[in-house]
Amino acid sequence: MRILVTGAAGYLGSALVRALAHEAGADDRLLLTDRVTPADPPRGARVELGEIDDPALHERLFATPIEAVFHLAGIVSGAAEADYGLGRRVNLDATLALLDRCRAQTVSGHMPVRFTYASSIAVYGVPLPERIDDDTEPRPTLSYGTHKRACELVIDDLSRRGLVDGRALRFSGVLVRPPLANGALSGFNSDLVREPLAGRDYVCPVSPESTIWVTSLERAIANLLRLAALDAGALGARRAVTTPSLALSVADVVAAVKRFDAEASRRIAYRADPRIEAQFGRWPLDCSFARALALGLRADESIDAIIRQHLETT
Amino acid sequence: MRILVTGAAGYLGSALVRALAHEAGADDRLLLTDRVTPADPPRGARVELGEIDDPALHERLFATPIEAVFHLAGIVSGAAEADYGLGRRVNLDATLALLDRCRAQTVSGHMPVRFTYASSIAVYGVPLPERIDDDTEPRPTLSYGTHKRACELVIDDLSRRGLVDGRALRFSGVLVRPPLANGALSGFNSDLVREPLAGRDYVCPVSPESTIWVTSLERAIANLLRLAALDAGALGARRAVTTPSLALSVADVVAAVKRFDAEASRRIAYRADPRIEAQFGRWPLDCSFARALALGLRADESIDAIIRQHLETT
Repeated sequence: MRILVTGAAGYLGSALVRALAHEAGADDRLLLTDRVTPADPPRGARVELGEIDDPALHERLFATPIEAVFHLAGIVSGAAEADYGLGRRVNLDATLALLDRCRAQTVSGHMPVRFTYASSIAVYGVPLPERIDDDTEPRPTLSYGTHKRACELVIDDLSRRGLVDGRALRFSGVLVRPPLANGALSGFNSDLVREPLAGRDYVCPVSPESTIWVTSLERAIANLLRLAALDAGALGARRAVTTPSLALSVADVVAAVKRFDAEASRRIAYRADPRIEAQFGRWPLDCSFARALALGLRADESIDAIIRQHLETT
Repeated sequence: MRILVTGAAGYLGSALVRALAHEAGADDRLLLTDRVTPADPPRGARVELGEIDDPALHERLFATPIEAVFHLAGIVSGAAEADYGLGRRVNLDATLALLDRCRAQTVSGHMPVRFTYASSIAVYGVPLPERIDDDTEPRPTLSYGTHKRACELVIDDLSRRGLVDGRALRFSGVLVRPPLANGALSGFNSDLVREPLAGRDYVCPVSPESTIWVTSLERAIANLLRLAALDAGALGARRAVTTPSLALSVADVVAAVKRFDAEASRRIAYRADPRIEAQFGRWPLDCSFARALALGLRADESIDAIIRQHLETT
């Protein structure tokens, strides 16, 4: 099976590539693409460098038919707000163009490509609902979330028509990310844990009462692989699933940090930015991930488990 | 003011152009585009023929800055189901490209274009909800409805950013249309009235118990103009509005036909197609158009009034 991973050099992408290489059978071939060379590509993987919105790159990627795509390349929330054109080209146009390539393969007689898409809980917008469950309407209020939602809709439609076999996982805040600034406005989720535990002062842009949804990198990747492996019949018509997440307050996170390092929590100060707090610090504690759980996806055990794992691997 | 109308030769488009010409001030300029020449363009209107997904056409249309767009060009439900690529190019890609032209105007210093978009109640999919009101989530299950919904989302986002001043009107079945087959699967709404009253037998593809949402052409255009004229502030963040419609059963329509011509209703036979009935004959009688009504949009008085008007003008 030929498996394409876009955004393969990224934080999620490189972890996904490691997991795929670990699982790969003798007949599996990994095709990786990103703007920069992935740090440590597995043996036998082919790497195609390029801009994800470049048709010439797509031409090279699909020169030989592909059976599965993990589409992770994207411009994250803050960067897409700052540069509309860039976000549009990468997050909407490039995704549509990749789906077109997959559709063309099906039309020419191949099995529909299993297209697994990294979506985001940013499909929900401001004001965030007081409860979010599988029946809550996504009403995005960021360009990032708008383009994610539009792609989810197109994936549902192409899957209904049998032109791709799509599925979309809406990621919540993945932590503990490295300090690399990629423009994700939800980055404070990770900073809040990483910075004080590394002995550095940290000014948090949301108040302690803020509430967030988080997942570990390990869980994020396990859920993505689980979703990709499901039979289309198990998914039905609605291909977008929200990743089961821990819903907790910033104060809860800080209390957990304190359990690992009593000093660390004193390094945190707060300077709440109302705009960041409205979109990124109002995730309802009243939430249900019933559909994802029924499909075998899982949330992390606890914030303590996430922090423990972070300390063990850094 | 320079006003662009796409789909200007169509059933809705030509009625809109007549209404705009009637309202136009001395400084208003109409720019009309379609694949075919509009039948009776008003004096002073400029006509640009072309395919709506052709960038060269867009270049010509936007050679001089435009203040308002009525974007009506589209591939309707049945035709978009039959030819995915055509529907995608026209209903999604071309709309995005027109919005890009408007955005480019704003970026270069013009006022945001007032972009009024002909959307559709096909943003709601199968199974149709038992109630539809302003809080009902659109879950399209046709490519046509998927692309309409994706464009609504992008219009909301561009409006939020001040890059266009968008608004979208979701049309219900407009009747009584002429017999021109343009591939609209909801065409039976009109056929049901027009054919028996013209003395012809008619086989209806949905059962008498089917329920439909309808509007007259006159109301459709009045509502579109009303929506286009509203201040952005009145609309707020959600720019898509469902046109107030008469919700009634096919049997109700047939009873009305009978009131005008006792013989006519005997010319109707039924051969229900479950797929057409599921999407086009299950519109809930339990519905609310509260938001549109609050904005000054109106439904027709009665099905009898629609039929009377049809008989007077044919």
